[in-house]
Amino acid sequence: MNIIDIIEKKKNNWDLSKEEIEYFVKKYTDGEITDYQAAALIMAICINGMTQDEILNLTIAMANSGDVLDLTDISDNIVDKHSTGGVGDKITLIVMPIIASLGIPVAKMSGRGLGITGGTADKLESIPGYNINLSIDEFKQNIKDIGISLMGQTLNLAPADKKIYALRDTIGCTNSIPLIASSIMSKKIASGANAIVLDVTCGNGAFMKNKDEAKRLSKMMSLIGKWANRQTVCVLTNMDEPLGHSVGNTLEVIEAIDALKGNMADDVKDVVLNLCIQMMNLSKKYPNVLETKGKILEVIENGKAFEKFKELVAKQGGDVSYIEDPTKFEKAPIITPVISEKDGFVEELNAEKVGKAGVELGIGRIHKEDSIDYRVGLMFEKKIGDEVKKGDVLAYIHASSPEKATECVGKINDAYKIGNKKIVKKNIIEII
Amino acid sequence: MNIIDIIEKKKNNWDLSKEEIEYFVKKYTDGEITDYQAAALIMAICINGMTQDEILNLTIAMANSGDVLDLTDISDNIVDKHSTGGVGDKITLIVMPIIASLGIPVAKMSGRGLGITGGTADKLESIPGYNINLSIDEFKQNIKDIGISLMGQTLNLAPADKKIYALRDTIGCTNSIPLIASSIMSKKIASGANAIVLDVTCGNGAFMKNKDEAKRLSKMMSLIGKWANRQTVCVLTNMDEPLGHSVGNTLEVIEAIDALKGNMADDVKDVVLNLCIQMMNLSKKYPNVLETKGKILEVIENGKAFEKFKELVAKQGGDVSYIEDPTKFEKAPIITPVISEKDGFVEELNAEKVGKAGVELGIGRIHKEDSIDYRVGLMFEKKIGDEVKKGDVLAYIHASSPEKATECVGKINDAYKIGNKKIVKKNIIEII
Repeated sequence: MNIIDIIEKKKNNWDLSKEEIEYFVKKYTDGEITDYQAAALIMAICINGMTQDEILNLTIAMANSGDVLDLTDISDNIVDKHSTGGVGDKITLIVMPIIASLGIPVAKMSGRGLGITGGTADKLESIPGYNINLSIDEFKQNIKDIGISLMGQTLNLAPADKKIYALRDTIGCTNSIPLIASSIMSKKIASGANAIVLDVTCGNGAFMKNKDEAKRLSKMMSLIGKWANRQTVCVLTNMDEPLGHSVGNTLEVIEAIDALKGNMADDVKDVVLNLCIQMMNLSKKYPNVLETKGKILEVIENGKAFEKFKELVAKQGGDVSYIEDPTKFEKAPIITPVISEKDGFVEELNAEKVGKAGVELGIGRIHKEDSIDYRVGLMFEKKIGDEVKKGDVLAYIHASSPEKATECVGKINDAYKIGNKKIVKKNIIEII
Repeated sequence: MNIIDIIEKKKNNWDLSKEEIEYFVKKYTDGEITDYQAAALIMAICINGMTQDEILNLTIAMANSGDVLDLTDISDNIVDKHSTGGVGDKITLIVMPIIASLGIPVAKMSGRGLGITGGTADKLESIPGYNINLSIDEFKQNIKDIGISLMGQTLNLAPADKKIYALRDTIGCTNSIPLIASSIMSKKIASGANAIVLDVTCGNGAFMKNKDEAKRLSKMMSLIGKWANRQTVCVLTNMDEPLGHSVGNTLEVIEAIDALKGNMADDVKDVVLNLCIQMMNLSKKYPNVLETKGKILEVIENGKAFEKFKELVAKQGGDVSYIEDPTKFEKAPIITPVISEKDGFVEELNAEKVGKAGVELGIGRIHKEDSIDYRVGLMFEKKIGDEVKKGDVLAYIHASSPEKATECVGKINDAYKIGNKKIVKKNIIEII
């Protein structure tokens, strides 16, 4: 077997065998196959596609390319949650403490932000002292002790996916459904989950720009899950506008704290409830589906979910006093309002434009090595469907300098469209 | 402009602009665009193809990526000749002295062999002392002095093509007509020719396996020539069996010497005459097309073509005594016959199989850095259409060791097919 023959096969739109896919994944991870050969093969896959068999074989080969976590000593049914990424997506910070407080073990590894989509790892690190770099033993011990751990992606899980993902980014091959599906599912399989709830974001602020694409991706991931013996449910959520009121690391942590205390924006609440319900179903701990929603609201109302979050922060070295009193978080030096110039309704609050403006403020990274500013971000007073009067504050910009704030005002104004229609946004598009 | 956008455009099967193609060629030659980005773009081109405008723009950009020779001080009408490569292709060694002896200046750079196709540069170097590494000034001076120079590809001509060509070889993208056409024509344009005769080989021993592919490639190269203001004629020649009687470096030089003295195999003669006629037409020195063939035969018969070859060898430091007495060339230590096991006619003498067997003997290189053995090769006694009796010698193997010879016998036997049909091979398929 040799890589040139494999590349030529896919170039000619023939199917690759299990052995050929394994050969490519193994030899590329080892460095025997060069980046340019991998790039040629990935481009051929992007253009010519893959069969379901090929996608499954690629997923399994990537999952097996590094460590595969065994969490059976914690539970025989670990339910994981993953989002395909969005703007203002603080859902993990809210859902996971709720799930843990319901007695379902939470073992979650989260990534950093790249491009316009934020990353949970960065948000956690904006809590002073919080350590995302755990060893696998510390990770497991935390779950045994308090039922939850949220760490970064520091273990050697699916290294083939890491290499291929980084390469795809530089060769214009990010938006391939076979490659996205196998990338996500390989990481989830390697991280030891038995069941997986996927938040598939859909809209201008997400990878999947339209519903059809998001549905195709969801069906593909559900199929992979089925084949790989992992129950998988996809919740398609709307990412046409940023989720909730805030975008930015510290600002989103504060919004998550508020949410855990029961104060949730409507869209956040819809997504949180739906994801929690699906996770509870898969956990098999709550067989009565009519009760699940009530149980979720209960742990929020009685403070158990919030307590679980504080316990998590304390366990991983974070300063809990910030969680108890979020006014302690360092604020951005400049806070500037964005004012509406006319009466009407918010018809659009473009998540992609907001995401790009946020990156310019310093929320996220353009390149992997960029540093980020935890304090900066955006707070939205008006979202899609809201009525506004001329002179109303649409949003507040939290910036590191007056120049950055001024620059951002125009961009946020541009992200808003004020018109005459009162649009009712559908937060949950479909469950697959 | 950035390379990721350019790659994505071609991935989505959109046309690239002149500026985008120039950007890619320049930045890739400079090393700013990585090999893996180039590999992704080349694969997308391979799969999605290119328009005629794109191919022309790519050709011109590659031609301009390094030095562009100006030979106007030698002649305002330099006619070049190029072959797309074959097994036993010693045509340059015969055609070019003929052309020079007809008073048409010959300025030719030739490549080394790679894979199953031989290279004129290697064949020339098998003449003791012959120097293929000339400076551009020496090259020009030789042409001024004696009307001919044959050198290697050592100048900085079309470096972009060199990089892309080497990359294509490692990513299964060799057989793309837009890429082959632009590669050949960029080198020809950079090497200062005003008019070009292309020997487009076609058959199992050539890049182009069938007539339709070869015709498409020919039409593409003729079009590029027309656009680039270079008169271009393509002679499609048969490469189903090796050309002439010999395959191997020294053996082919000896066959070329014989041919220049008037002893030519039928297929060699057909190709030589047709290429010479086309070159003479393009040179405009022989306006009476009815006379050209006679003129060619004349310089062969009166010894002028052979004298020109000796002059060339002497000028470039070669030992002319070898040309005068080819028995001086060192012979391979083992010469083994391949014997026919039955009566009949040669229906097939597979050039690809012969080429591969030749590489194993040491004629050519599998990798660029491999060394070659000038002495070894194959001499064919029987070719397609010839009648054979059981016990007749089909061919002689010239090998460096008994083991190599024995190994080769089976391969050459396998290349022959003896049957009942007397096949008449068409040496010249078409002129485009």
